[in-house]
Amino acid sequence: MSDQSLHQTVRVDLGDRSYDIVIGPGVLGETGARLADLVPGARCAIVTDENVAALHLDMLHDSLSAAGLEATPIILPPGEATKDFGHLQQTVEALLDARLERGDLVIALGGGVIGDLTGFAAAVTRRGTGFVQVPTSLLAQVDSSVGGKTGINAPQGKNLVGAFYQPRIVIADTAILDTLPEREFRAGYAEVAKYGLINDASFFSWLEDNLDAITTGGPARTQAIATSCRAKAAIVARDEREAGERALLNLGHTFGHALEGITGYRSDVLVHGEGVAIGMVLAYAFSARMNLCSPDDVKRVTAHLETAGLPTDLTPVRAHIPDADALMDFIAQDKKVSRGALTFILTHGIGEAFVARDVPPSEVRTFLQQMLES
Amino acid sequence: MSDQSLHQTVRVDLGDRSYDIVIGPGVLGETGARLADLVPGARCAIVTDENVAALHLDMLHDSLSAAGLEATPIILPPGEATKDFGHLQQTVEALLDARLERGDLVIALGGGVIGDLTGFAAAVTRRGTGFVQVPTSLLAQVDSSVGGKTGINAPQGKNLVGAFYQPRIVIADTAILDTLPEREFRAGYAEVAKYGLINDASFFSWLEDNLDAITTGGPARTQAIATSCRAKAAIVARDEREAGERALLNLGHTFGHALEGITGYRSDVLVHGEGVAIGMVLAYAFSARMNLCSPDDVKRVTAHLETAGLPTDLTPVRAHIPDADALMDFIAQDKKVSRGALTFILTHGIGEAFVARDVPPSEVRTFLQQMLES
Repeated sequence: MSDQSLHQTVRVDLGDRSYDIVIGPGVLGETGARLADLVPGARCAIVTDENVAALHLDMLHDSLSAAGLEATPIILPPGEATKDFGHLQQTVEALLDARLERGDLVIALGGGVIGDLTGFAAAVTRRGTGFVQVPTSLLAQVDSSVGGKTGINAPQGKNLVGAFYQPRIVIADTAILDTLPEREFRAGYAEVAKYGLINDASFFSWLEDNLDAITTGGPARTQAIATSCRAKAAIVARDEREAGERALLNLGHTFGHALEGITGYRSDVLVHGEGVAIGMVLAYAFSARMNLCSPDDVKRVTAHLETAGLPTDLTPVRAHIPDADALMDFIAQDKKVSRGALTFILTHGIGEAFVARDVPPSEVRTFLQQMLES
Repeated sequence: MSDQSLHQTVRVDLGDRSYDIVIGPGVLGETGARLADLVPGARCAIVTDENVAALHLDMLHDSLSAAGLEATPIILPPGEATKDFGHLQQTVEALLDARLERGDLVIALGGGVIGDLTGFAAAVTRRGTGFVQVPTSLLAQVDSSVGGKTGINAPQGKNLVGAFYQPRIVIADTAILDTLPEREFRAGYAEVAKYGLINDASFFSWLEDNLDAITTGGPARTQAIATSCRAKAAIVARDEREAGERALLNLGHTFGHALEGITGYRSDVLVHGEGVAIGMVLAYAFSARMNLCSPDDVKRVTAHLETAGLPTDLTPVRAHIPDADALMDFIAQDKKVSRGALTFILTHGIGEAFVARDVPPSEVRTFLQQMLES
């Protein structure tokens, strides 16, 4: 059973595509009742991976059954390699075989990979079938499940194929996170810290004071996740299709993606959240170098991410980087490139990130060279 | 050179996704200038099939070059089988290889297959890249290129995977239609007649009077195409995502799709427009049987479609239909099924179609049985 007083609901305000994110320990068990309330008699499919299925599929299935909802499970292999055209096709055809109609519900039960792939499959099945997110990783709860970006990877890069597609509801069970490997929890925490760094200095201070309680679980964890979702929801509501402000959410991501790319997306070397952690430190360090923020800010960001057990310099990846030019090639490949100019998220301090267009590539190259040599 | 006085422009009014359909003889040659005006310096890709490439690719490429626009051709095999996941992936990866960014332009040069596949590829590449339609068949000019439905086929049925995605502009060169095989032109004409039958009795009368001139080309053809586009645009503007009224555009299509399905989509037996022609006659005949319209309306529709060289009864497909139940299975498979009930477009007369929900399946079955026996 779940204690309602420990729950928080964040509303994502997108006109007729608005939806709720329900956050708290034990909310997974309420999924059936909530979905039956949303679409009475909905036919459901649960898309998940083998690892998550072993841990949580039965509980979700039971919750749906108890609410009178039929659900077909679609179980995929775990890992980033699942986010490809082959598994998209497999998922879409399984949804059609399950005879889901537009008003029915496709439920993503898993982390970012499952959420991104399933959301895209729901978006294109019958040109749009109802979609529900049940994120089971910290990263997915605070990032991938908010904002409607869905998609798969292409040989040319990550997330280059996809759709903007909003879920009908997100169920984020904070107790589930206790089943996560510690490294994955820490990696997700990088995205939590990001929301403080973007535009909420007091949240960042609160995180510095409450890191232990967030890690242990309980109300502080729910609070951290709800604040992160609320921050992302506010930005997405103002700029759903990434015409401007939404780019702020990429703080640390241009560097981070390049590091993930150059190490071949090998999760033994670097996972996404770790790339973001290093990327955020690099964004602060580059901003300090350009006299945009103080070196003290760089130290404070570095110290907090280190305390959270995250990498904060190029140590884990240095062996995979031939030189600064190779990294620059990955940066130029990133899809946030606009007509050849480099766009970065830079910062004037803690909670003062901004979109910098036309950043001189030569400055970035010199900076990276120095970081590689240091 | 094109004569501007013979051109018509139809505006499709969809808020910030509004666009123009430019219709007339010779407008293909203006494409470059128009696209350069829309997105100065755009990088372009032209997706087409081998047959259309042989006829029209050079002219389009020259027009773009003359306007200073680079274009990468992507040439696919002709035919309905191209609308599958494999060719979607091939097209998307070719667009990424050509380094198209979100603001660049993916041009579909071809009929419905190329338009549907290319629009879907543009919709999902970088979660949405600029899209331009240059329809080269009558069917594509009056139907597929208006309204933003894009997609591919699945083993479970046609057009079951896709997106609603609007083009930036549509260039419909009416002179190009002279290069079409006669059967394909006639099949496209079924969709022209459909707009009269849905809600414009005076257009249907005008078509009865002007069929020869439309077939020959010239202003009557441009007028017929512009009126069709305007009719569809008006309906789409009121109901972009097919929540209600847009279903009217499916007049003749539920029966037509079932006939296409049961004959295995074999174009030697039946092409889409022919299925729609038979389907419209069936929709009128079923409506008359239900005392919704007069038997005289059925005769008038049948006579006009016959004059246009289209099939109007089950003769071409009878050998492929084991019995009425087999046809009913295909009808139930159709994606316009809503929660098990049958939705049909029926009619009170010429230009008086309406959406009938909860049509009794038993009535449809008995009707089809009689049609098969007659």
